[in-house]
Order: sequence, then structure tokens, then C-alpha cells
Amino acid sequence: MPASPNLSRRLAKLTSILDVAKAMSAERDLDLLLPLILYEASKVVESDRCSLFILDREREELWSKVAQGSKNEIRLPMGSGIAGQVAHTGAVINIPDAYADKRFNSTFDVSSGYRTHTILCVPMRDANGDVTGVIQALNKRGGLVFDAEDEELLLALGAQAAGAIENALLHEEINRLFEGFVSASVVAIEARDPSTAGHSGRVADLTVSLAQALEHHTTGPYAHVRFSAVELQELRYASLLHDFGKVGVRENVLVKAEKLYPHELDNLRARFQLARKDLQLQSSRRRLSAVEVRGLSALPAIHQEEDARLATELAQLDEVMGFLLTCNKPTVLAQGNFERLLELGKLTFTDAHDHGQPLLLPAEIQSLSITRGTLSPEERREIESHVDHTYRFLSQIPWTRALRRVPEIAYAHHEKLDGTGYPRAIPDTTIPVQSRMMSICDIYDALTASDRPYKKAVPHTLALDILKKEAGSGQLDPGLFTIFVEAEIPRRALKKQSPA
Amino acid sequence: MPASPNLSRRLAKLTSILDVAKAMSAERDLDLLLPLILYEASKVVESDRCSLFILDREREELWSKVAQGSKNEIRLPMGSGIAGQVAHTGAVINIPDAYADKRFNSTFDVSSGYRTHTILCVPMRDANGDVTGVIQALNKRGGLVFDAEDEELLLALGAQAAGAIENALLHEEINRLFEGFVSASVVAIEARDPSTAGHSGRVADLTVSLAQALEHHTTGPYAHVRFSAVELQELRYASLLHDFGKVGVRENVLVKAEKLYPHELDNLRARFQLARKDLQLQSSRRRLSAVEVRGLSALPAIHQEEDARLATELAQLDEVMGFLLTCNKPTVLAQGNFERLLELGKLTFTDAHDHGQPLLLPAEIQSLSITRGTLSPEERREIESHVDHTYRFLSQIPWTRALRRVPEIAYAHHEKLDGTGYPRAIPDTTIPVQSRMMSICDIYDALTASDRPYKKAVPHTLALDILKKEAGSGQLDPGLFTIFVEAEIPRRALKKQSPA
Repeated sequence: MPASPNLSRRLAKLTSILDVAKAMSAERDLDLLLPLILYEASKVVESDRCSLFILDREREELWSKVAQGSKNEIRLPMGSGIAGQVAHTGAVINIPDAYADKRFNSTFDVSSGYRTHTILCVPMRDANGDVTGVIQALNKRGGLVFDAEDEELLLALGAQAAGAIENALLHEEINRLFEGFVSASVVAIEARDPSTAGHSGRVADLTVSLAQALEHHTTGPYAHVRFSAVELQELRYASLLHDFGKVGVRENVLVKAEKLYPHELDNLRARFQLARKDLQLQSSRRRLSAVEVRGLSALPAIHQEEDARLATELAQLDEVMGFLLTCNKPTVLAQGNFERLLELGKLTFTDAHDHGQPLLLPAEIQSLSITRGTLSPEERREIESHVDHTYRFLSQIPWTRALRRVPEIAYAHHEKLDGTGYPRAIPDTTIPVQSRMMSICDIYDALTASDRPYKKAVPHTLALDILKKEAGSGQLDPGLFTIFVEAEIPRRALKKQSPA
Repeated sequence: MPASPNLSRRLAKLTSILDVAKAMSAERDLDLLLPLILYEASKVVESDRCSLFILDREREELWSKVAQGSKNEIRLPMGSGIAGQVAHTGAVINIPDAYADKRFNSTFDVSSGYRTHTILCVPMRDANGDVTGVIQALNKRGGLVFDAEDEELLLALGAQAAGAIENALLHEEINRLFEGFVSASVVAIEARDPSTAGHSGRVADLTVSLAQALEHHTTGPYAHVRFSAVELQELRYASLLHDFGKVGVRENVLVKAEKLYPHELDNLRARFQLARKDLQLQSSRRRLSAVEVRGLSALPAIHQEEDARLATELAQLDEVMGFLLTCNKPTVLAQGNFERLLELGKLTFTDAHDHGQPLLLPAEIQSLSITRGTLSPEERREIESHVDHTYRFLSQIPWTRALRRVPEIAYAHHEKLDGTGYPRAIPDTTIPVQSRMMSICDIYDALTASDRPYKKAVPHTLALDILKKEAGSGQLDPGLFTIFVEAEIPRRALKKQSPA
């Protein structure tokens, strides 16, 4: 039995809409989805061109990225023009002769040189029946007018398109969400520690720039390492958030500039003041006792002897204080100083209540004996724990599959290739290349940044020398360091600051 | 011309699939979407029941929330069973007689008492052609077998369902993202200030519980205030994150327990020790001078006089120190104390280098003169700035429309109805009811929590008295406070801790 040609054509078109619906629902990039919808819409109603407007309910506006023939985003108030009316009323508008219809606005024709004859404008509705946008077809081919079947088909396609557009908008929303989360976290890091404000951003710029520079390397161990756009995004997020865990480290530890904390040094100085006063008091008391024994006539001699003795004792005390101040600096402890500190631990003085007290406390000896830098092992562990905090924080976030390595990349940014890094001291084979790049950029920025009150900024070339030494000793990746230098990553990534 | 009945039926079914596709694409809740798909699938192929499995590529498993006739999530390894095979090969399986087919596993029939005769199992594919799941129809109605048209229709429906399911999974993902980000932020808050660990969670439990309690109020100003599920979620997020901005407040200010910081008190005490020693030194020197004038024979009398004088002077010094320690407590400054502090500011002593020095520094007088609590105006502003930080942080996050008030609700949690709150001191009409509820719960928990080192926990009943006073004086919302008490929100929300 032969099929009715009319029914067959409709069946074919509806079937093709189902196929198009499948293709649309898989396209997650709005910038690719919208042209696809327009192409299919033009095909199904045999029009010369189509436009699509999405309804922004909050602002009561229609917006379009792709009115065919235009590239810029257009925004129309709801209710205005033919598209605005369709969005407002939800009713189809089918105009057989544009220039005979007073609803038609010829401005666009005038500016573009296009000549509009026929217009079919239909709402896109979601399944709740709510209008979510408008599709507008211009100029039915063959000089025909749009008919009821075109209306039906464009409405059907619009309903499918509505779902696909929502899906794509959701994907855009997810991307915006991650962007938003990441910038919120950067706000938090910088509120926590304004002295490193900008560090996260610069490390991200440097690391992404280094990753991009690998593109141009066709030889060596990184000849085949390439990063896709989403991998660069993953790397950027990991870099922006690598120090997030510092919110969990006490700030006095974070910015410790000398071996004793300022209040500890205050206490030490105050004790020396008291000891100084005590020497004066002891000297005065000795004079009185000597007068009792040797008589008043000996007083000038007693004063002379005691003045000399007191001067010597005070000079000794000042020398000890000077020595302690030297030990307090964050330089490497000189040989023999530890032994002298232990010896000084035996000194005592008499306090204001006439009790004997040690001049130097065991805790102070311990701090001043730190052989390198300013941190005790406990403090170093606390600083190092920021990486664990970062990892715990980032692991709470349900990254998409494409971004799932963000926590892992950030976790390894203080690991060293020779296994001496922290917090896990993992071997080189398990340190991701992303983390190796971040290490170089993190150290470079920490050295050259001028924003840390407890550290002087190091010039660009000296920073490279320090990095070179670390690369040479097997801590940093020498191949990546070479690319960092040769591609002039700092100059390229940190244009605003133009390191010398 | 009469239509071919065969074509008409297919047209009708395809049209209905388009309608169903629209309905499916609008359903964002997977728990509602899946039954809808199964219902429509059974209808379109005229089967007794259907099941649907979604492919988890990462784990190479199929999972199902709604195999018809079962409520639990089922997981199958890919490749296993008929559904697993269809997922693996992508080919349709159509079985006219289950018990005659060795691929059929009758375990489920045996356990459920169901009798499977015919099976149609088709893949769901996205537009890239990738299998994303499987739909399985059992027992074609009327004792028939599934035919080629059923295969075509179920495949078409499956393709539409695939898009809708992806959409719903995206919505789930967005919700999981918010959940994840909020818990990551709570991890950060608590890493920052372990002493308030748990506070955010308890305030969230209390506030949501209070919001739910409004349900039962049919009279009074809150008779018609109701919160939907998503509004409760918005409230929970705002409560969990209300203190996030504390990451931006220096921790010594955050936990300041007395008017002087510990190191400031140390400095003050050290100065008094030095002054004490100085009194002793002055006394000793006076004795020597007196001997010079009055002769050695007067020494016992001189000692007696000087001992008495020194004892008096030391007692005066100790009394001053005692007074300063009293002023240092976070109680209200007693009348006259400010004047005495100013007077004491004139006292001097001689330091270890024989320079005259003030015994009490202007900055110390200023701190000790704080009339209420322990914070200077600058410190109070710094503490109060945590709300601004919270708002800035939360405003970075692109909340969905349904959650868009999270920043605004958290922003107002320290505002008072009488306009004396912070940071904006806004009037009552502009304070959201959510923030009013959060205020009550925040203060209640701050009072009763036993985890703050600088504050003692207050018993439940005393906390209610304090809140009652604040409600009575027009700071807290009295209607909400009444509900807080009558509905026994703390008992209900904080079951684990069961306040007395």
C-alpha cells in the first residue's frame, strides 16, 4: 500500500528532528550548539536564515549570540519587536509580507542591506510550557510563505532545542561555578595573608606559561608532553589554590623572621635589663659592705675598684646579648656557637624578688641553636602541613572528570625529585610534571616577590642562579628549568612587573 | 486520501516520543525522571515492565536506581548479563523466549516470582554514538514478541532519554559541587580556628531547625512564613559559611581574652620587675650616701629607716601592679579607674641605663581604659570586618538563582533590629528573616559552646535569659525567639550534645 506523500514527508521531517535533537543534546558548547540549531532550523522550514534568542527572565530581556549575519551579543527588552512579542505572548507570529506588516522594523534591513520578505517566529518552550526563547526564520525559499506545517516543525525543533540549550547553559554554569569557587578561595587566601597577595595569581601565570612553552619543544624528555585547554585550566586551578592550606597555619609561624619570635626576644631583652640592674645593685651593696669593713676613708678606692668591676661585668653582659642577637639571625649557625649557647645556659642572675634565675632559658637555647633558617622542627612541620591542608580542602570539591587531578597536582608542589620534599617525600617518578613546573614557578616567585615583610626580594638573575643550583643538585627538574629560562617565562608571564 | 494505518501509527508514536522527550528534558530530578522514562518506554513498546541502567564508564559498571519492581540501587559489571552485554557491544538484544535462551539468567525470576517471557534490551546512545546506558523491556503485552518497530521506537526513546538523564545528572553534579565547596570552606574555617570547630555546623542545624519549626505556626507574624526545600538549603549554606570571613581576621584579635595581649602584659610585668630592682638599687645607694654623711655608727639606724622605706615603696609598686591586673580583666571598668590610670601614667622609674622611663605607657593606659570587653575600637572593627570578608567571599560564588540570597543572608547575621548591629547597622525592615533566625542561633551557640578558650560556656537556661534580654531590648526578633524557646530548637537540633 503506497504511503501518502504528505504524511511521508512529515514523518521524514519529524524523524530528522529526532536525529537533530540527539545531535543537539550532545553538544555542550553553546558557541557550537547555537549555529547547529540555526542550521537545522533553516533546513527544516526551508528558510534563508534563522535567528535564536534566549530569554533572560531575571532581566526581562532576550539575548542572542548568533542572530545569523551578526557576531555580537544582542539584547532586546522582552515585548519589543517581533521576537520580543513572541517571547511575551508565547504566540507564533507568521508574516507573509514583512513590509506590509506594521510590526516589522526595517532598521536591520536598512543597516545590513538584507531584504526581508517573510518571517516565521515561534517560541521555544520547556516542558512546563514556559517560554525559554524564540526562533525566527526569515525568507522561505522559493518565494513561498511559511505555512502551518512549518510552524509545527519549527515549534517541534524549538522544543528540542530548548532542552539542549538548557544543557549547554548548565555546562557553562558548571564552568562558571568552578571559576567562582576558585576566585572566592583566592580572596580567602589573600585576606588571610595580605603579604603574599598576588603570589597565587603569579604562580598560576608562570606555571601555565611554562606548560604552554612545552608546545615548542620537539626534542628532549618533554618533546611529547602537551597540555590541552582543559588540562591548562586544571593546572591553573591547582596553581591558584596551591597555598590555600596556609589558612590553617598560625600567622606568626608563617612570617617568622628570626629564630626567636618578637615577644620572645622582648622577654630576653627584659631579662638582660634586669640582670644589668642586678649587677648595679650587687655592686652598690658590695660598696656598702666594703665600707663597713675598710672604713669610710677607703670609699674613694672602693668606688674606683667597684666602678671598674661593674664596667667589666656590664660589658660582659652586653657582649653576651650581642652574641645572642647574632645567633638570632636566620643565617647558618657558626661553628662553636652551639657549645657557647650551652655554656651561657649556666649563667644566672638575681631577680627582683632576690631569687636566682637562669639568664638564658632552655627554650631560648633551643631556638637560638636552630642550625639553618628560623624554624624549629615543629614549626617547620606546621608550615609544611599547609600542603596537607590544601590537599584536604581541594579533595572536598567534587571536581569534574576533566579537572580531577587538581588536588593531586597541588599536593606535590613541595616535593623534590631526590625525595627530600614534603609532606610525603615521594620519589621523582610519582611527582606529576605539572607539580614539577609549579615548584619552579613557586620558588621563583617566592624569591623575587617584594611583598614579604620577612624576606628581601632577590633579583631575577640571582633567583635563576638559586634555581639552577637546586636543579643541578637533583631537587628541581633540570629539563623544565632549562625551558623556564630559555622561554623567558617570567618575562612572558609577568609582563606587568617586568623583572630585570 | 486515507493515510496508511501503519505509517499513521508510527507517526503518532514518533510524535508522542517528541512530546515525551520534552517532558523528560524538563525533569531535573533523576528520582522523578527515571520512573517517567520507564513508564513511557513501557507504553511505547507495550511491555509489562521496563528497567533502565546507566553506564558508569569510570568503574565500568551499570547502575540502576529503578529496575521496575526494585527500589535499591543495583550495580552490574559491564559485559555481564543481557543488559551488560548490550552496554558492552552496543547491539540490540531481542529475545522471543527467555527460558529458551542461554543468555537469560533466571535468578531474578526465581527470587521475585516474576515470569519473564520476552525481552527487548536496547542501548541508550548520546549523539557521539557512545553508549550511555541500557533500556530493557520485559514481556510484550498480549503474549506477542517485540518486533523491529519496537526496537526502533525504544532506540528513539532511549536517545531522547540519554539527553534528559545527562541533564539531570548535571543538575545533581551542580548540587554536589555546592555541597563540596561548602564543606571545603568549612574545612578551611575550622583549620583556621579550631577553637570554634563545629560552630558553623551547629549554627546551621539550629537555624534550619528553627526555620522548619515555623511550619507549625499558624498565628502571629510568622504564620505565613514557610521555607521550601531549596530555601532551607540556601539557609543551611548561609549558616555554614556565616563566619568564613574570620579567615581574614588576625587570630590574636580573634581570641583576645584580656585588654592587654599576653606579650603586652609580659612587657608590663618586666618593666615592673625592673622598677622593683631600681627601688632596691636606689635604696642601696641612699644607704651608702647616708653612711658618708652620718658615719658608720649610724648604719643600723640607716638600714632600719631604709628597709621600712623600701618595703613601703615595694608594697606601693605591687599595689599598682595589682590594680593594673584588675583593669586588664574583661569586666566593665569601675568608676574612677580611668582617672587613676591617667594619674599612674605620670609615674617613672630609672631603667638599666639610668634613663628615666614612664612606668606605664600611653598605649597601655589606652588599652586598660577599654570600658567594656577587651577590644579597642580598631580591634572591634577588625573583628566586625569578618562579616564583610564573608560577604565578599560568598559574592564571588556564582550561586544558582535558587541559592542567590546566600551572601545576603550571611551578610546580615550580626545586624540588630534596633539598627545597632554591624557591619552596616541597617534597620529592621531590611534584615531578612533568615538572618534574624541565624542571629539567635549564632549567639546561642557562641554562649553555650564549651570550645572557646577565651570564654567559659554558659548553661542553656542562662543563655536563654541573655537572649531574652536582647529580644526584649529590641535587638533580636522576639517572635522568632519565642519559637526558638517553645519549639525547643537546641534540644531538637543538637541531639548529640543534649544541652541541660
